[in-house]
Amino acid sequence: MNMLELIEKKRDGGVLNKDEIDFFVHGVTDRSIPDYQISAFLMAVLWKGMDDEETAELTMAMSRSGKICDLSNIPGTKVDKHSTGGVGDKVTPILLPVVASFGIPCVKLSGRGLGFTGGTIDKFESIKGFSTSVDPSSFKDRIEECGMLLGGQTADLAPCDKYLYALRDVTGTVPSIPLIASSIMSKKIAGGADAIVLDITCGSGAFMKDEASAGELARRMISIGKLAGRPVSCVMTSMQQPLGEMVGNVLEMQEVLQILRGEGREDVKKVVLTMAAEMLHLTPYGRGLEREELMERCREKLNNGEAWDKFGELVLSQGGMLQSDGSPVFVDQPFDVMTVYAEKDGYIASCDALSVGEASCLLGAGRMEKEDKIDMGAGIRLYKKIGEKVKRGEELFTLYTGSDPQVGDDRIDEALFKMQDAYEIASDPVEPPKEILSIISP
Amino acid sequence: MNMLELIEKKRDGGVLNKDEIDFFVHGVTDRSIPDYQISAFLMAVLWKGMDDEETAELTMAMSRSGKICDLSNIPGTKVDKHSTGGVGDKVTPILLPVVASFGIPCVKLSGRGLGFTGGTIDKFESIKGFSTSVDPSSFKDRIEECGMLLGGQTADLAPCDKYLYALRDVTGTVPSIPLIASSIMSKKIAGGADAIVLDITCGSGAFMKDEASAGELARRMISIGKLAGRPVSCVMTSMQQPLGEMVGNVLEMQEVLQILRGEGREDVKKVVLTMAAEMLHLTPYGRGLEREELMERCREKLNNGEAWDKFGELVLSQGGMLQSDGSPVFVDQPFDVMTVYAEKDGYIASCDALSVGEASCLLGAGRMEKEDKIDMGAGIRLYKKIGEKVKRGEELFTLYTGSDPQVGDDRIDEALFKMQDAYEIASDPVEPPKEILSIISP
Repeated sequence: MNMLELIEKKRDGGVLNKDEIDFFVHGVTDRSIPDYQISAFLMAVLWKGMDDEETAELTMAMSRSGKICDLSNIPGTKVDKHSTGGVGDKVTPILLPVVASFGIPCVKLSGRGLGFTGGTIDKFESIKGFSTSVDPSSFKDRIEECGMLLGGQTADLAPCDKYLYALRDVTGTVPSIPLIASSIMSKKIAGGADAIVLDITCGSGAFMKDEASAGELARRMISIGKLAGRPVSCVMTSMQQPLGEMVGNVLEMQEVLQILRGEGREDVKKVVLTMAAEMLHLTPYGRGLEREELMERCREKLNNGEAWDKFGELVLSQGGMLQSDGSPVFVDQPFDVMTVYAEKDGYIASCDALSVGEASCLLGAGRMEKEDKIDMGAGIRLYKKIGEKVKRGEELFTLYTGSDPQVGDDRIDEALFKMQDAYEIASDPVEPPKEILSIISP
Repeated sequence: MNMLELIEKKRDGGVLNKDEIDFFVHGVTDRSIPDYQISAFLMAVLWKGMDDEETAELTMAMSRSGKICDLSNIPGTKVDKHSTGGVGDKVTPILLPVVASFGIPCVKLSGRGLGFTGGTIDKFESIKGFSTSVDPSSFKDRIEECGMLLGGQTADLAPCDKYLYALRDVTGTVPSIPLIASSIMSKKIAGGADAIVLDITCGSGAFMKDEASAGELARRMISIGKLAGRPVSCVMTSMQQPLGEMVGNVLEMQEVLQILRGEGREDVKKVVLTMAAEMLHLTPYGRGLEREELMERCREKLNNGEAWDKFGELVLSQGGMLQSDGSPVFVDQPFDVMTVYAEKDGYIASCDALSVGEASCLLGAGRMEKEDKIDMGAGIRLYKKIGEKVKRGEELFTLYTGSDPQVGDDRIDEALFKMQDAYEIASDPVEPPKEILSIISP
């Protein structure tokens, strides 16, 4: 077997068998296949696709390419959660304490943000002292301590995926459904998940721009889960506009605290509660119960303060600092740079997620390049969302930087222009978008 | 401009402009674009294609990527000839002296063989002393001496193409019409040709397996020629079975001598005379004349000994040795290993070019890898061709090695099996294939 034959087979529309996939994954992992052959192969996959079994074989081979996180010594069904990324996506920091307050062990391995989407790790690191470098050997102790843990993805989990992803990023081979699906699932499986709930975001601020491709991605991941013996549920959520009203690291964590107190915007809650119900549904606790019933029980955890307490336990368990009222100490505070007001009466017709994400990134809240330092205080507050009525002179949005801004006035100006483009006001009423587009369960 | 954008543009079906093509060719030539981006781009080109103007821009940019051979100080129209390769293709060594005997200057830069197709350089090097290392600065002197020269492709002509070709070879990106067309044409243009006649072989023993893709390749090259101001004629020839009756280096040169004496098989002559007429037709000498008339005048050059004399001049001019009768001295003699006879009466239905080419290669006449040494005496003689009547016990083919065989008995056995597969005898009469499938002129 040689790599050229595999490239030609895929180029000509062939289906690779398990041995061929294993050969490829080994060769990528031990660097015996040169990059130029890997990238030609990836482009051929983008062109000709992979069928369900091929994709599952690729996933399993990648998940075996490094260490596998063994969580079998932790009792209970370990349900993992993953989002395909979005703007203002602060679901994980709320979801984890909600689910954990049912006594379900939650091990969540997250990534950092790149480009216009934020990363969960970055958000948690806006809490003073919070460390996401958790050694897999101490997972059990952490879980026993507070029932949850939030870790950064380590290099030794699915290293083949890490290498392939870096190459895809610079060779135009990212947008391939089987490659995206196997990349996500291989990390989840290597991370030791027994079952997985996926938040597949869909819209301008997401990787999947339309419902058709989001649906195809969902179908693929459920199929991989079946072949790999890990039940997978997919929740398709709208990312036409950002989730909630805060975008940025400290800003989003402030919104998280608000919701953990039972307050805050309904759109964020809707996504959190839907995801939480799906996670519970994959455990013995929730198996026989209706989704609506599970959602109500989860909402109760927000209202009765249990989720708030759990969040505090998580922060302390990973070295974070709490104030006397139980809220965390942040590494920086957002300083408002300017607020923009509506120039006419009407209804919000657009609050484009991509533009808001890019504007927030320009302010310093995100990374343009992998090495960039993040300004934890930077970001944007949105006062109005699609469908809401607005009067001339009412606040539309505020731009923030940290106490020591990491970008110059030109970048702030650019962010302002992006935000002005993001908002559109119509004179006729506008239907607000549904948060949950659909749910696909196994 | 960056390479990732160009990959994505092509991947999404975009058309690159001149600046983008120039950026790519410069980046390949000076190695500033990494191989993994080049190969992903090449696979995207194979997928989405290139339009005529893109292909012409790529050709011109590649032809400018190194030295350009300036033949303007040689008077007359310099017509170059190229074949897409075949088995038993001994057209060049006959064609050159025929055309040169009309006083038309012939500068032919050729390549070495790889795989089942033979290379013209290798065939000439089977003549003792013959050197194909000709410095471009001495081209004028050679042309004045005998009106012809046969040179090896030097690394400094179209180096971008050389680099791309090597990468295509190991990344499954060879079979792309725009990439094939631009590769051939860039070398011809850098070689200083004013006009070009292409022999596009078509069939099992050729790169183009069917007439449709051969026709598309022809159309592309004519279009490039138009945009580059170099008239191009394409002759589509059949490569269902080998050309002539000899395959191998010394063996083919022996058949060349036979034809230069006005003897030999009509199929080889037909292709040579058609190509020669096309070449003359692109010069002032032949412009107004009918192809049939030109072919007759060329045939006369074979019959009256003028082409034979010219061939001798070429050999001497490049350091080759001649015997007293004017025929060259070869570096080795073919030794026949075995002859196989027909097992039944009938008509030859198949003499598969690919199988014969591979068998010849197994005997040592070709290279499996670029570094392999060639056995000049090795090869195959075919006594019967498609459509010919055969009687049980008549000779079908003979296998040859050189006086010091470079391969073992196992390779010879393998060659024999290949040859037995190549031949098929039918009981009903079989139509012999036409040598010339079509001619496309500008």
